[in-house]
Amino acid sequence: MSDAAGVGPALRTLPPPLEPGTLRVVPLGGLGEIGRNMAVFEVRGKLLIVDCGVLFPEETQPGVDLILPDFSYIEDRLDDVVGLVLTHGHEDHIGAVPYLLRLKADIPVIGSQLTLALIEAKLQEHRIRPYTLTVSEGQIEQFGPFECEFVAVNHSIPDALAVFIRTEAGNVLHTGDFKMDQLPLDGRITDLRAFARLGEEGVDLLLVDSTNADVPGFTTAEREIGPVLEGLFGQVRKRIIVASFSSHVHRVQQVLDAARAHDRFVCFAGRSMVRNMAIAAKLGYLRVPDGILVDIKNVDDLPDDRVVLMSTGSQGEPMAALSRMANGDHRITVGKGDTVILASSLIPGNENAVYRVINGLLKLGADVIHKGNAKVHVSGHAAAGELLYCYNILRPKNVMPVHGETRHLIANGKLAQQTGVPAANVLLTDDGSVIDLVDGKARVVGAVECGFVYVDGSSVGEITDADLKDRRILGEEGFISIITVVNRTTGKIVSGPDIHARGFAEDESVFDEIKPKINQALEEAVMNTRDHSTYQLQQVVRRIVGTWVNRRYRRRPMIIPVVLEA
Amino acid sequence: MSDAAGVGPALRTLPPPLEPGTLRVVPLGGLGEIGRNMAVFEVRGKLLIVDCGVLFPEETQPGVDLILPDFSYIEDRLDDVVGLVLTHGHEDHIGAVPYLLRLKADIPVIGSQLTLALIEAKLQEHRIRPYTLTVSEGQIEQFGPFECEFVAVNHSIPDALAVFIRTEAGNVLHTGDFKMDQLPLDGRITDLRAFARLGEEGVDLLLVDSTNADVPGFTTAEREIGPVLEGLFGQVRKRIIVASFSSHVHRVQQVLDAARAHDRFVCFAGRSMVRNMAIAAKLGYLRVPDGILVDIKNVDDLPDDRVVLMSTGSQGEPMAALSRMANGDHRITVGKGDTVILASSLIPGNENAVYRVINGLLKLGADVIHKGNAKVHVSGHAAAGELLYCYNILRPKNVMPVHGETRHLIANGKLAQQTGVPAANVLLTDDGSVIDLVDGKARVVGAVECGFVYVDGSSVGEITDADLKDRRILGEEGFISIITVVNRTTGKIVSGPDIHARGFAEDESVFDEIKPKINQALEEAVMNTRDHSTYQLQQVVRRIVGTWVNRRYRRRPMIIPVVLEA
Repeated sequence: MSDAAGVGPALRTLPPPLEPGTLRVVPLGGLGEIGRNMAVFEVRGKLLIVDCGVLFPEETQPGVDLILPDFSYIEDRLDDVVGLVLTHGHEDHIGAVPYLLRLKADIPVIGSQLTLALIEAKLQEHRIRPYTLTVSEGQIEQFGPFECEFVAVNHSIPDALAVFIRTEAGNVLHTGDFKMDQLPLDGRITDLRAFARLGEEGVDLLLVDSTNADVPGFTTAEREIGPVLEGLFGQVRKRIIVASFSSHVHRVQQVLDAARAHDRFVCFAGRSMVRNMAIAAKLGYLRVPDGILVDIKNVDDLPDDRVVLMSTGSQGEPMAALSRMANGDHRITVGKGDTVILASSLIPGNENAVYRVINGLLKLGADVIHKGNAKVHVSGHAAAGELLYCYNILRPKNVMPVHGETRHLIANGKLAQQTGVPAANVLLTDDGSVIDLVDGKARVVGAVECGFVYVDGSSVGEITDADLKDRRILGEEGFISIITVVNRTTGKIVSGPDIHARGFAEDESVFDEIKPKINQALEEAVMNTRDHSTYQLQQVVRRIVGTWVNRRYRRRPMIIPVVLEA
Repeated sequence: MSDAAGVGPALRTLPPPLEPGTLRVVPLGGLGEIGRNMAVFEVRGKLLIVDCGVLFPEETQPGVDLILPDFSYIEDRLDDVVGLVLTHGHEDHIGAVPYLLRLKADIPVIGSQLTLALIEAKLQEHRIRPYTLTVSEGQIEQFGPFECEFVAVNHSIPDALAVFIRTEAGNVLHTGDFKMDQLPLDGRITDLRAFARLGEEGVDLLLVDSTNADVPGFTTAEREIGPVLEGLFGQVRKRIIVASFSSHVHRVQQVLDAARAHDRFVCFAGRSMVRNMAIAAKLGYLRVPDGILVDIKNVDDLPDDRVVLMSTGSQGEPMAALSRMANGDHRITVGKGDTVILASSLIPGNENAVYRVINGLLKLGADVIHKGNAKVHVSGHAAAGELLYCYNILRPKNVMPVHGETRHLIANGKLAQQTGVPAANVLLTDDGSVIDLVDGKARVVGAVECGFVYVDGSSVGEITDADLKDRRILGEEGFISIITVVNRTTGKIVSGPDIHARGFAEDESVFDEIKPKINQALEEAVMNTRDHSTYQLQQVVRRIVGTWVNRRYRRRPMIIPVVLEA
């Protein structure tokens, strides 16, 4: 069961068998959280998957590396999958592909040129060579019972696609992530003429990006950042360090252009930045001015006013280049007069980490520019005003807001209703809901298991919510472990109690006062209870120590009593 | 040593002995963090303390309840303390008073009527009855070598004071927390005529609130919220729930007034809200319309459109009233058509918790209004525009920005310079810095120990940074404990290895494959090493298990090897 249950009338019953003439949609992620986007479409027993992304854990999921969609609904049916369409190359849309392809490596992967290049680089690290089909806007391909037409959309990564899916049961448009920048850097706008044509044809169900549905108005154009960067670059007399997401090709393009205008070299810092920009440049998405790039090991040979570092770490990630610079733990030394520009969003939950980095850079003497004090970032998602255009052009019969927390899905649903979509045709559902589209009407018919699947080190799905609860207790309270060895025959204590604690108190002499009481209680338990079990003895220890530590310290550490017989 | 070191040239040497004719200032908190505000002033061996607050922990300090200023600089000199001045009643200025008075209960506590009422209520819970002196604006009192004149300032709690301290070595103005609302609800403005007079007299050193120094312009007037609340109240047909800080008397006043205008009863929900509003009403700071209050146990008897709940929990605190309502775990049931208004700030680091509450309330069918979608909150601190007024009216010789992270202190220092304070007279220092004012010149002369003191359950200062590091490891990775009993004489293993893990894997059978290797390695170590120590044997186990778990699972849990002899 998902922690991140969505809204809507949660029908927690298994769905009925699928009839011919019905299209089934099962979102396995992205409804109730921003991340792990994945939707499964089914007609006549064949499955088409759109996106397969990861979710990044928050503070209640300590130690977890990644969270995957729950594949259990499809894992026994992978032979029925006719294709996996990737709308664009962001981690929350492609990050879980390696874990799906581990289950079946030959699922056809369909996407645009850049999207496929990014997933192929990722799969290479996992030693998987996928079967791919490169598509571009306007192209129509048949995958089993699904005819897919791809539509250009504009987003914060180039080459993003929406997908229009024609089936015997009706037509679905899945927008993927998009916004409607009318003057994008590459001229590739969200294709509203195609939206209009598909609207004329009939959109029976629209799956639509909700990320900015609660933001009024319109997202500012990406190209407005360029002049801001140019202005800043013109003022700085020392090094410039810009941090952004490593897949944001157009942001990096504007940094390259501003650097060129001010006669500075650019150095990519951070593994993913180097890798992604190499891919983007090779495929022609990034125009790199001749001779502008410099390797990080040569940066110190250049005058400070000839250098721009284009870095990862804009979210305060502790191991990324920018955090390490802020800690003085990177080969690039930041100092007085240097200017750091966080040309990036501030994802909720990352505030303290980002402010730690900013404070660290300021202490080193740098100036720090961020979206709070200059227009150096715009969002990649359509705000409410753009979504209204979208609804009015498409005029969908049924709408299912996707890609958002509850608050975003609800806001998006309200926008749909404002444009005339009847409330009954706005589906506010959650991960694992099963939606059937039949005779032009979409409705929730059931639900399937759809919990969070945790990647932790090399383990996938082994860490459970119970483990995370243990970690939260351990992380907040520490533990006390009490080990006693009892003679198998006499029942007498032969060793212990040996007490170990971590995260509780460094000085273990605090336990001296409780040790005699533990032994006394144990010996009494052994004497009084014939056929005492080890478990019973451990409970005696747990109770004694738990009561003592709560009374004495008002704390509730985890207590691990161990009674061994020797 | 403080984690939250400030800026400036950190002179980490002990200060010289204090000469007559010199005023010494030692900030023990609030410089490098927003919280635990405390400053110690010294002249001729006598100490005056201004504020004594707590800092709330962030995610890198798991399990910690509160963080105190480090009292070690003064704990052997408490007999020299002539007074503790409290500028206002917020936790980050008064929260650590009980811990200071535990060391010496008869330190005179000086503050305004409301401030003292709030600290007395808090001290009662700690069973401390303080010696107090109530002061108000315009009043002048002598405490040893310090003549203190109190000046009215406007803040997000009534009855806040700045303090002007005259000494033989010069005059200091400590603003406390303040803003310059020109039309405050109670008409009590920051007294700029007094600021002007004191400026004429001469401010040798200004300690000035930095919280909003990086916010351009002016803080909006509190009274602009009233009409917004009234407008919202007029639209709602069901229950209204407003959440705010429980000390924000004027915010609550506006809720009471809006409720009265729309003929609704008001119920205070949450322990601190009930307590503080009783105090504020009794002392005349809160005007409660006759018969408007209703007890929480009678709320369900009233029609929904006659009720406003005024609640705690605006920061997403899991045990506060609002979070429990969002979880369906409170006697007040939230449902469709109810409107929840978060008339509050969103403190960095609390975003995920607050959004969890908002998503929970939305799922229950409520509408949620917050500062992101309506003007229902204004800050309590002076923004950059107001600080410029302050500098220009006071014309201080030396300026020491206080109350902020590094980024706020630096921004405030820049404002001071813009008004003409020479850069050399702007002191950007950190907690524990020692500043001497002599002959009109303030400079850093040394530093004293000033680490974070953690309150954890009933323990104060016992939890160390090492414990917190252990907690972070335990919280992210869990632990594996391996217990082996070895025969004291033969060195043979008589029991074990007994392996316990938490937060790592629920199924302990994963350890079966490593157990024989542990025993083998231990027996070899016993055979090969004459006079092996228990520590050596434990290290053998640690190495075997650590290597295995890292290779097998790519994880680094805490490993606790225990070898017992029996």
